[in-house]
Amino acid sequence: MPSRKDLANAVRALSMDAVQKANSGHPGAPMGMADIAEVLWNDFLKHNPSNPAWANRDRFVLSNGHASMLIYSLLHLSGYDLSIEDIKNFRQMGSKTPGHPEYGMTPGVELTTGPLGQGIATAVGMAVAEKALAEHFNRDGFDVVDHYTYVFMGDGCLMEGISHEACSFAGTLGLGKLIAFWDDNGISIDGKVGHWFDEDTAARYEAYGWHVIRDIDGHNPEAIKKAVEEAKAETAKPSLICCRTIIGFGAPHKQGTAATHGAPLGDEEIAATRKEIGWEHPAFEIPAEITEAWDSRERGAAAQKEWDGMFASYQIAHPELSKEFIRRMAGDLPESFEDIAQKAVDAANAAAKSAATRKDSPVALNAFGPAMPELLGGSADLTGSVGTKWDQYELLCKENWAGNYMSYGVREFGMGAMMNGMALHGGIIPYAGTFLVFSDYAKNAIRLSALMGVRTLWVLTHDSIGLGEDGPTHQPVEHLAGLRMTPNCYVWRPCDTVESIEAWKAGIETKNAPTCFSMSRQTLPFMARSEEALANVKRGGYVLRDCEGTPECILIATGSEVGLAVEAYDRLTKVGRKVRVVSMPCTEVFDAQDAEYKESVLPSSVAARVAIEAASADFWYKYVGLAGRVIGMTSFGESAPAGELFKHFGFTVEHVVEAAEETMR
Amino acid sequence: MPSRKDLANAVRALSMDAVQKANSGHPGAPMGMADIAEVLWNDFLKHNPSNPAWANRDRFVLSNGHASMLIYSLLHLSGYDLSIEDIKNFRQMGSKTPGHPEYGMTPGVELTTGPLGQGIATAVGMAVAEKALAEHFNRDGFDVVDHYTYVFMGDGCLMEGISHEACSFAGTLGLGKLIAFWDDNGISIDGKVGHWFDEDTAARYEAYGWHVIRDIDGHNPEAIKKAVEEAKAETAKPSLICCRTIIGFGAPHKQGTAATHGAPLGDEEIAATRKEIGWEHPAFEIPAEITEAWDSRERGAAAQKEWDGMFASYQIAHPELSKEFIRRMAGDLPESFEDIAQKAVDAANAAAKSAATRKDSPVALNAFGPAMPELLGGSADLTGSVGTKWDQYELLCKENWAGNYMSYGVREFGMGAMMNGMALHGGIIPYAGTFLVFSDYAKNAIRLSALMGVRTLWVLTHDSIGLGEDGPTHQPVEHLAGLRMTPNCYVWRPCDTVESIEAWKAGIETKNAPTCFSMSRQTLPFMARSEEALANVKRGGYVLRDCEGTPECILIATGSEVGLAVEAYDRLTKVGRKVRVVSMPCTEVFDAQDAEYKESVLPSSVAARVAIEAASADFWYKYVGLAGRVIGMTSFGESAPAGELFKHFGFTVEHVVEAAEETMR
Repeated sequence: MPSRKDLANAVRALSMDAVQKANSGHPGAPMGMADIAEVLWNDFLKHNPSNPAWANRDRFVLSNGHASMLIYSLLHLSGYDLSIEDIKNFRQMGSKTPGHPEYGMTPGVELTTGPLGQGIATAVGMAVAEKALAEHFNRDGFDVVDHYTYVFMGDGCLMEGISHEACSFAGTLGLGKLIAFWDDNGISIDGKVGHWFDEDTAARYEAYGWHVIRDIDGHNPEAIKKAVEEAKAETAKPSLICCRTIIGFGAPHKQGTAATHGAPLGDEEIAATRKEIGWEHPAFEIPAEITEAWDSRERGAAAQKEWDGMFASYQIAHPELSKEFIRRMAGDLPESFEDIAQKAVDAANAAAKSAATRKDSPVALNAFGPAMPELLGGSADLTGSVGTKWDQYELLCKENWAGNYMSYGVREFGMGAMMNGMALHGGIIPYAGTFLVFSDYAKNAIRLSALMGVRTLWVLTHDSIGLGEDGPTHQPVEHLAGLRMTPNCYVWRPCDTVESIEAWKAGIETKNAPTCFSMSRQTLPFMARSEEALANVKRGGYVLRDCEGTPECILIATGSEVGLAVEAYDRLTKVGRKVRVVSMPCTEVFDAQDAEYKESVLPSSVAARVAIEAASADFWYKYVGLAGRVIGMTSFGESAPAGELFKHFGFTVEHVVEAAEETMR
Repeated sequence: MPSRKDLANAVRALSMDAVQKANSGHPGAPMGMADIAEVLWNDFLKHNPSNPAWANRDRFVLSNGHASMLIYSLLHLSGYDLSIEDIKNFRQMGSKTPGHPEYGMTPGVELTTGPLGQGIATAVGMAVAEKALAEHFNRDGFDVVDHYTYVFMGDGCLMEGISHEACSFAGTLGLGKLIAFWDDNGISIDGKVGHWFDEDTAARYEAYGWHVIRDIDGHNPEAIKKAVEEAKAETAKPSLICCRTIIGFGAPHKQGTAATHGAPLGDEEIAATRKEIGWEHPAFEIPAEITEAWDSRERGAAAQKEWDGMFASYQIAHPELSKEFIRRMAGDLPESFEDIAQKAVDAANAAAKSAATRKDSPVALNAFGPAMPELLGGSADLTGSVGTKWDQYELLCKENWAGNYMSYGVREFGMGAMMNGMALHGGIIPYAGTFLVFSDYAKNAIRLSALMGVRTLWVLTHDSIGLGEDGPTHQPVEHLAGLRMTPNCYVWRPCDTVESIEAWKAGIETKNAPTCFSMSRQTLPFMARSEEALANVKRGGYVLRDCEGTPECILIATGSEVGLAVEAYDRLTKVGRKVRVVSMPCTEVFDAQDAEYKESVLPSSVAARVAIEAASADFWYKYVGLAGRVIGMTSFGESAPAGELFKHFGFTVEHVVEAAEETMR
């Protein structure tokens, strides 16, 4: 029977050989964490390699994503659909083994990691999801949701601020089934960390309210095993297991140095490593007895079978609840969704109310929320301002896991990664709010939502100089364009309550991408619409006001500037100009319409176009071209009442009319 | 003589009255921290209200910037050029008292705050600057640089991840003259913080290596005074003074609740507060004896006079050093700068070397560095990759304050705010590097550089899919556009070694804005240039290759795609097409050229234009219009060797030629 060292060495060998073959990658961390991984995966991890989608599997998060060959090795060895050929194709075009682990590319990879610190924060979100879903669905004798979330992380993750945000909150929440391993190898890219990372991390985590297990030899399987048992025994606090390791363990001349971190070891060192660790097999060849010892398919199938049996009984005992569990884990919307949405739009249209669009979110939530307990809301300590609270609001906290709302604290980035974790876990559609300008703080989490293709809903309010007195630190300018240009990220900037409800509907329906709602602080006038216009809101851009025949000029606007465009339209129409107003609440959705529709809204024959948006002007040349005009922001805002700011920065009817006339000359 | 309470109450009254008059703002924190501020400003703060630019003043940082009325009150009362009329104009257009404190708008405001967490991190940078400059300039008997950095911060700052990044590092660096006050009022916008912020902050800071003074009653001046004395006595560690306070202290019905945080108290509550705190004076009226007691002009002038005397002797004893001190604190470049730059450009041009532009930064640093000890470099743990190290590199760390380079650890956001702090302090031009994609993590610090108008240099490498195998988590797409659209932020994306040196030159010369260098991982070919082209690089966009007469088509490219444009130019020219190539390393600088020059580069008569950049396509319609084509990114990248990715995403000569031909049809 192979020893534990042999099993761990299989990971080391695959990792160093794959990196060498790709001539690119990170062998150090996989080799350093191989022993920890071997113990966790072989003795503890509850998973079924034949079904990576099993709802009740433990979640494994490789927060130090550059160690991708570690997880690929583990997935291959334990029996996932990841062949040795896939391993050989590490980092090649179209392979299942990209440079960093990517969600959706590789069976068994639970999330995309690489941007440091986000893995651990996403794991906190997964652990929250587990606990909230257990509260929703578990019944006496039926622990339908009952799994651990395990995290590997390195010094880099611990230096990143997001680890503070998420882990401090995890401590406050008492997430007992979150267990993190710190790969304490004392090395980062710049060298020995002492000169820049000398905190007492264990004490720091104790200050967060974590259960900390110190001084574990990360190359001693028995010590690791005992530590995991201890961690599992503590059910009221998340656990941090501090493992001292040697980066690049086994590479005789390079181990313990930054040289093993991010470059192939080289053929010579690899040969020496084989000798050093006693692994004499050729590259990519794993002896049968080692393959067998790693193979977790049987154990995994048995574990799932047991759960399946329990779930079958649960379906009998709790038919409605079990149906709901299946629906929610599949991410499907309730059957009544379309109806609810239609009624909500109709009601908003009938009410014809003028309101700040930030106040439309509670309207949407009051419509959708009762039928959608999967909506888990929150805000980064701006609940009263951003409109994320609705009638059935109930705080989720350590003492109440039945809640549907989290006060995340002033932690935008942590909130974003946690939302990703909930969406990835399944069973929850997370939404949360902050000011649009502070999307900066969370930007890379939104980007990862988009890259992974998960449904997170961002309520981003106070979306322009229209917020007034708080001034330029709080007034977004470049943010809308930046989010729109982020691939697979939808940005809706509604102009009134009807567009707001449509935006929420679209966001909830968009299963494979994040949606940002850009909402005003200030009141916006309700827009009366034709039936046709009403039907076209969902197409992202549509004709809101029109003339007879071909327009001489098209005004394009979004959100708070649509009212201005309509006023200018009225004035121009009065003097006999043929003008059209296009409301463009979501450029990405509009861009995705067929050419015929787009041409019908923005006929290419009409070069006289004016775009109006109180945000970066540059973005809009895409729609108005070199012959058009953009009334937008080209500087930071200022601190003053909103009305004065709009005047000061040229967002006036006069200016729009003037610009329109210029384009028609 | 007025009591300390009376003095603090003057701050409370001004704060609540100004917020009421503006009908907008945050009275809670100023009222809660008034006692702490009174002790610090009257008993400790070394400053000269008549000269806010005195080099050796203590720096005061209001990290909880929403408490702006606190600092405005303090500045007004202590004698800065901030009148009671200015206070009455709180949050009004063009006033010296904007909603959040803004650098450059108000004498005595050292930095812009409001985006939480960044104040404390910026203060860490200021404290680093103080210690580094002391090392550079102080001599026996001449403590030219010797001041404290004081920080006020609330729970929000402590929840933000950046506080972890900067404060963990501050502990490692042992910044003994950094003293922070925690306004521990237990309240944030969502209410009592216990459900989301329950960490043991004091223990956390001890884990960082700080000197922590616990349990100070923030309304007891004697206790506060003793705590500051203790903090000053500890010279090897930064100090955190934990002050228990009551938010909105004195407002009888609202104090201790979130209701005082971000809204006016209301006339009734203000009247009740006046009674409660025993402040019977009308709004905006401060009794003479209180004004006199607060007035710090005499004390400040005396303090500066003493320093001036010492500095006069220093000038005699160390004439060169004192001249250098004056130059550096003024932010002026060395006299030799133009010469050095010209020689560096000429040398790069003569060498005609093809290199990855990330490797051009050391070339620039080796040219500029020896004459510019104010360049303080660094990187967020990517020193080997991003090219921030040069021949005279020397690590600055706890044991060596003579160093010129900081390994910031994996802390992009903290690094950015610290750079802002160094630039604000004066005497230092900070530059530092990370991957372009991780500018996301630091984005709001770059934004604050731009808003404050301070010179920070960002080396942002691995600037496209050209980084290859690390994959889409590491491949920027939307980042260039986002940074370019950030007002007052310059982005240079050089195509070869000559443009790189010009970019560095421009960045160093741009005193009132940050500059980002977007640098390639992959090797880029050297571009031979005409004299005229060489002279025009500094104009941000210029004709690199041209035809006789008016071109039929213009190819516009930046950075790694310029080579592609030139190859397409060669091919098209060969078949008789009249084509021009415009290299556009800095769109902001190009946009700022006179209309005639811009027209000469991009004649409006030529609508056939193709822009090529391996980043968000949308940005480039600004230059090519609706008739043009953009070869850019419209999705995330992938993990594969760079050459394959360029092909896959359409960055090929064939594709450029095809697009050009399309536009000419």
